[in-house]
Amino acid sequence: MTRTVLESKSKTVTIGFDEPFCVIGERINPTGRKKLAAELEQGDFSTVEMDALEQVLCGATVLDINSGAVFSNKMAEDPRYADNNFVEPPLMRELCARVQAITDVPLCIDSSVPEALKAGLETCEGRPLVNSVTGEEDRLETVLPLIKKYNVPVVAISNDDTGISDDPEVRFAVAKKIVERAADFGIPAHDIVVDPLVMPIGAKATAGRQVFALVHKLRTELGVNTSCGASNISFGLPNRHGINAAFLPMAIGAGMTSAIMNPVRSVEMEAVRAANLLMDHDENGMQWIRLAKVIEAMKAGATFAEASKAAAAAGAGRRGGRRGRS
Amino acid sequence: MTRTVLESKSKTVTIGFDEPFCVIGERINPTGRKKLAAELEQGDFSTVEMDALEQVLCGATVLDINSGAVFSNKMAEDPRYADNNFVEPPLMRELCARVQAITDVPLCIDSSVPEALKAGLETCEGRPLVNSVTGEEDRLETVLPLIKKYNVPVVAISNDDTGISDDPEVRFAVAKKIVERAADFGIPAHDIVVDPLVMPIGAKATAGRQVFALVHKLRTELGVNTSCGASNISFGLPNRHGINAAFLPMAIGAGMTSAIMNPVRSVEMEAVRAANLLMDHDENGMQWIRLAKVIEAMKAGATFAEASKAAAAAGAGRRGGRRGRS
Repeated sequence: MTRTVLESKSKTVTIGFDEPFCVIGERINPTGRKKLAAELEQGDFSTVEMDALEQVLCGATVLDINSGAVFSNKMAEDPRYADNNFVEPPLMRELCARVQAITDVPLCIDSSVPEALKAGLETCEGRPLVNSVTGEEDRLETVLPLIKKYNVPVVAISNDDTGISDDPEVRFAVAKKIVERAADFGIPAHDIVVDPLVMPIGAKATAGRQVFALVHKLRTELGVNTSCGASNISFGLPNRHGINAAFLPMAIGAGMTSAIMNPVRSVEMEAVRAANLLMDHDENGMQWIRLAKVIEAMKAGATFAEASKAAAAAGAGRRGGRRGRS
Repeated sequence: MTRTVLESKSKTVTIGFDEPFCVIGERINPTGRKKLAAELEQGDFSTVEMDALEQVLCGATVLDINSGAVFSNKMAEDPRYADNNFVEPPLMRELCARVQAITDVPLCIDSSVPEALKAGLETCEGRPLVNSVTGEEDRLETVLPLIKKYNVPVVAISNDDTGISDDPEVRFAVAKKIVERAADFGIPAHDIVVDPLVMPIGAKATAGRQVFALVHKLRTELGVNTSCGASNISFGLPNRHGINAAFLPMAIGAGMTSAIMNPVRSVEMEAVRAANLLMDHDENGMQWIRLAKVIEAMKAGATFAEASKAAAAAGAGRRGGRRGRS
């Protein structure tokens, strides 16, 4: 059984065929979040910290930390800020340090800048996931040595120097190449989490079937865990949450073992928890029953994060009570 | 490609591997609906007629007609009413006649009384589905000749004289036996829709995985279409709609091609429509986009049936408009 082990200072999370689906919280990402980027430029990490806490409360077991910020004001003053190689490494260091100071889940270090990945690896306690390597030659040559040196798992994205292929067979071949190249570096297949690339179903009607088939093949033929940016499937269509909430269980049924997604959305998290239950990855249905209470509490107007927080506090209180009686 | 063809007087519905999931509306069923049974006893078919119309509006493409009523008052006056062989045949005849007078979808004749199945077959126009035969000897011997005589498809439930097995391999073997026995009668496999039997996940933690594996095997090894009573999976657990809404896409991903379910529940129908989209069984996403509008309209307080009716009326208006201009 393939097991990809992630660690924080105090917690171990295993991505695996016989594990609950691993939810990697996607919120800490200034790419496409202008307000967050502006805050970070001013050294304001309050949104990052709130996002970290909320995502964990809502069920993320790993937090993605993306340092891809554009600091427009600083750029006007100092041209070095136009270069992400200058901006990202110190930002990644700060983001990782702040998040692991207030949460206990493993992190996923997410950057296209190798020096930022290195800065994250130097800062993170435990065994973070690195996001990502691709099949592009220069990426393989710069990222894989880091993965080997720090002995950490990595997300492998199925595109290479020729771009993203429409043909799932080509995407499978790229994934296979990455696994083989990693092996040359002494990195085992169980430390590679393949992202088969999810296309928007609105643009490509076969996108869903392709991913389900590809995940199955990656699992049975390469023996690797898999991940994806789940919400991409619904891009451009109305009622996106409804599509995502069917896509996730179908992907899980096909063998997908993790996703980078927004855990603060209850509809998607409900779908993931139900799929865990249906895959027999929720002992005695405890997680489902807990979530059902949270959803019940939301009917009174609480957000998913608020209701999750209240449920966690009530649970801690009960646990305290039992300890008190024993 | 396996195709099970159902017909009403004017409409053809195909259950098949390359077709949208077939939603068989379950509402017209006095078993467990005491109020409905009491109405039927008094010759009141208003609820049946409303249920028929609403289910079709909400997306059922086939309507199940179950005649399993218990007429307690009549029973007190006339002991013959204690016998379902006496009650069901005329009731089935009346139910089928009334429903096909106001809707144009194929029917699914549902009874454990062979004479009621026969009454339904005599009444139904087109090519109804018969629900059901099992692997029990007396059922095989009484139902299969009817299926052959009327040249209709049948739901085959995977239990036999030994009961319902916990072992999916035994359930597969029962299904295989039914398919083989049907062949002896000259009934082709594409006219058998196997119900692999869905157990409650709350009672059996592996129930989901079992069904997904069994559906896949039935499809690849026996080449048959499949169906199930979908809501059974969530029996006894809180937030049942959430479980059903993950189960349906997962079952569809595994190869399930129809279900007997409640189409008036928007959560489940949303899951089915999203799964159709993700399986590339929704051309240009038209059904999804239409549903998204209905769900949007529900935010203003309309029920799913009301909002579906309004959307259907608006669609008809637009179609009329186009005809007017041409």
